[in-house]
Amino acid sequence: MTPVSGSHFSIFDANFLKFSYRFTQKTNFTDKEALYPHQNLSYLLQFFTSSNLFRSNQLEEQKLSQSYQVAILGATGAVGTELISLLEERNFPVANLKLLSSPRSAGKTLSFRGEPVTVEAVGDRSFDGVDLVLASAGGSVSKAWAKAIVEAGAVMVDNSSAFRMDPHVPLIIPEINPEAAHDHQGIIANPNCTTILMAIAVWPLHTIQPVRRILAATYQSASGAGALAMEEVKAQAQAILNDEAVPTEYFPYPLAFNVFPHNSPLDDQGYCQEEMKMVNETHKIFGDSSLKIKATCIRVPVLRAHSEAVTLEFDAPFDLGAARQALQQAPGVKFVEDWEQNYFPMPLDASGQDDVLVGRIRHDISNPCGLELWLSGDQIRKGAALNTVQIAELLAERELLRTSSRETVGTR
Amino acid sequence: MTPVSGSHFSIFDANFLKFSYRFTQKTNFTDKEALYPHQNLSYLLQFFTSSNLFRSNQLEEQKLSQSYQVAILGATGAVGTELISLLEERNFPVANLKLLSSPRSAGKTLSFRGEPVTVEAVGDRSFDGVDLVLASAGGSVSKAWAKAIVEAGAVMVDNSSAFRMDPHVPLIIPEINPEAAHDHQGIIANPNCTTILMAIAVWPLHTIQPVRRILAATYQSASGAGALAMEEVKAQAQAILNDEAVPTEYFPYPLAFNVFPHNSPLDDQGYCQEEMKMVNETHKIFGDSSLKIKATCIRVPVLRAHSEAVTLEFDAPFDLGAARQALQQAPGVKFVEDWEQNYFPMPLDASGQDDVLVGRIRHDISNPCGLELWLSGDQIRKGAALNTVQIAELLAERELLRTSSRETVGTR
Repeated sequence: MTPVSGSHFSIFDANFLKFSYRFTQKTNFTDKEALYPHQNLSYLLQFFTSSNLFRSNQLEEQKLSQSYQVAILGATGAVGTELISLLEERNFPVANLKLLSSPRSAGKTLSFRGEPVTVEAVGDRSFDGVDLVLASAGGSVSKAWAKAIVEAGAVMVDNSSAFRMDPHVPLIIPEINPEAAHDHQGIIANPNCTTILMAIAVWPLHTIQPVRRILAATYQSASGAGALAMEEVKAQAQAILNDEAVPTEYFPYPLAFNVFPHNSPLDDQGYCQEEMKMVNETHKIFGDSSLKIKATCIRVPVLRAHSEAVTLEFDAPFDLGAARQALQQAPGVKFVEDWEQNYFPMPLDASGQDDVLVGRIRHDISNPCGLELWLSGDQIRKGAALNTVQIAELLAERELLRTSSRETVGTR
Repeated sequence: MTPVSGSHFSIFDANFLKFSYRFTQKTNFTDKEALYPHQNLSYLLQFFTSSNLFRSNQLEEQKLSQSYQVAILGATGAVGTELISLLEERNFPVANLKLLSSPRSAGKTLSFRGEPVTVEAVGDRSFDGVDLVLASAGGSVSKAWAKAIVEAGAVMVDNSSAFRMDPHVPLIIPEINPEAAHDHQGIIANPNCTTILMAIAVWPLHTIQPVRRILAATYQSASGAGALAMEEVKAQAQAILNDEAVPTEYFPYPLAFNVFPHNSPLDDQGYCQEEMKMVNETHKIFGDSSLKIKATCIRVPVLRAHSEAVTLEFDAPFDLGAARQALQQAPGVKFVEDWEQNYFPMPLDASGQDDVLVGRIRHDISNPCGLELWLSGDQIRKGAALNTVQIAELLAERELLRTSSRETVGTR
């Protein structure tokens, strides 16, 4: 999954197919896809019918001379620090990076491209001249600053749940619904981590044969509650090993050597917010609110990758070979199963990886039209920061961001 | 759940109802059941029509003068040591306790009723004069000694999977199918831990309205792999906290701060043995092989209690109030849910408890005839040792064991 920003392609080039994906459903790709383009005809077709075809090389060249004023709101959190790493690692065209936080964390120094950047307290003038805000400081902070960000002319890619279900705000997983980005009005929402991981695995199957019902049971890591919660689980584990009192500040109950249902608020039907996010956000991303979804979200003492046991129901039996092939080719997915070795996705392996590890594909023995899969994905990477940066890349590629170069000849 | 062995009851006594349960489906009971007998008419009816009625007081008195020569095979393991505790704690009428193990563990000293008992290596004469063998040393050990045990005239309650699916061997959860004990031919099998925990929670609902499909996702503790595996997980956690190499001897991958699918052998359909035990054993215990069951078994870094997310499907909607009432009254179940506090069963609370904690009862929002529940149960207690001892109690109460007092006037 190398970003191809800045590369030049010929239509005769092996990279042509990879490049084409970026203007269709696919923003990532595997070497296998490049080697077996005949298996990807639908993507090619999308590419040839895409209006982007005739401006793509131009865009690539234009991008080289373009860069963006970027701000990270919530820069010191688990996702915030990962956003900084990813902007650097994926060579996002950053002209200047502003790190914003609450006054409590202001003054800290973080590193970007080898240079120290001092974290500033967010304030009324923080967004002047900023093109892109990557926000990951919680829903209330995003709500508090959204108006200022949009009025400053920047686009906010928001990692909180504040705007996800707002009908005026696109909710995007670039591998699934990149087109929705064109409708943005200054805010684009990044889905919930458990939703992203599940959707990335289910979408490639859904495009072959529509899924009618999804049942998920999650095994969610401490990172979903932030960097301090991760530290708390480690401290809890040490306390239990030492037979000492177990600290519980970020979680209601000890998580080390324990599991418990996700502690987000419960609704009248007995479903917590985390579970309903998986239902409602998947409806919005897939563009199909008739899809039946039920999730049971459970926290487990893992540091940073979530796992999910997913049961899918279709109208007819789903061929296992077709399912495996689809997942092997799917962008954002690393297909992991070794039945001989009893080796499948696990959070230990998924941590730090961009791809969602998916495997253990089998029929549901309780339903002839059912399919089972098991996945692990880095909650901070693809579950949050990576998807956010991929949305930013999508906005840049499709010229959906205001650029600093344009602004400098503009009114500011 | 106080055992009532040795008590005497009058039909006018408050304990009468409790006593009656022991000769019907129920071997345990709650105070609530004793207080509200009108809610338990079916059990009373069973009692009055039971042939045990007229010999029950006699049996109670007889039991006082009876005691059994008991052997524990696999005495030094996690379940073995719990069996010793439970025999003492529940005041099982043990005349003499013999502790048996492999030669490797022989010579160790364990305590029973305040007296030291030296562990002996199991051998050809180990079962002479023994009435009851509680076996928990793995399937191969049970298979190796079963013939000798039965030929010695003892009854083996076997905690391994060796004989569970043998049509000549009853597979018993005393709260569910105690009647099956009457068919024993020297061996009674104790079900798999995940099966017991799920069955205990599902059975009270199944008796109200037949369940047609069960989907389970498990969160299984290290204790399922034995005492040494529990120590390994603690050692792994400490190594990870110290940033040292992680030991993996009993598990194929690190379990601390990780989760992975259960590492038992996989079949052609992609289901591991642990998952198929939940299917096949539940069929046998419920006496209904038409019931559709699918399980996904996952190991989590918890020490000794398993948790399960269970989705049930019925032919018609299941009333939530009726489900809650049934579970509140069910033997072996402690109903645990506090929606205000977001407090539900968790392994931390279930560890060391006899009852299976069940709660978070809600409708399945993806199916109008579906019901969801969440449970945690001590894998070593009700999941293994407690159920084994309860089977032993059942055998004693129903006079299905040879007794030493009889034997002393017999041929040996």
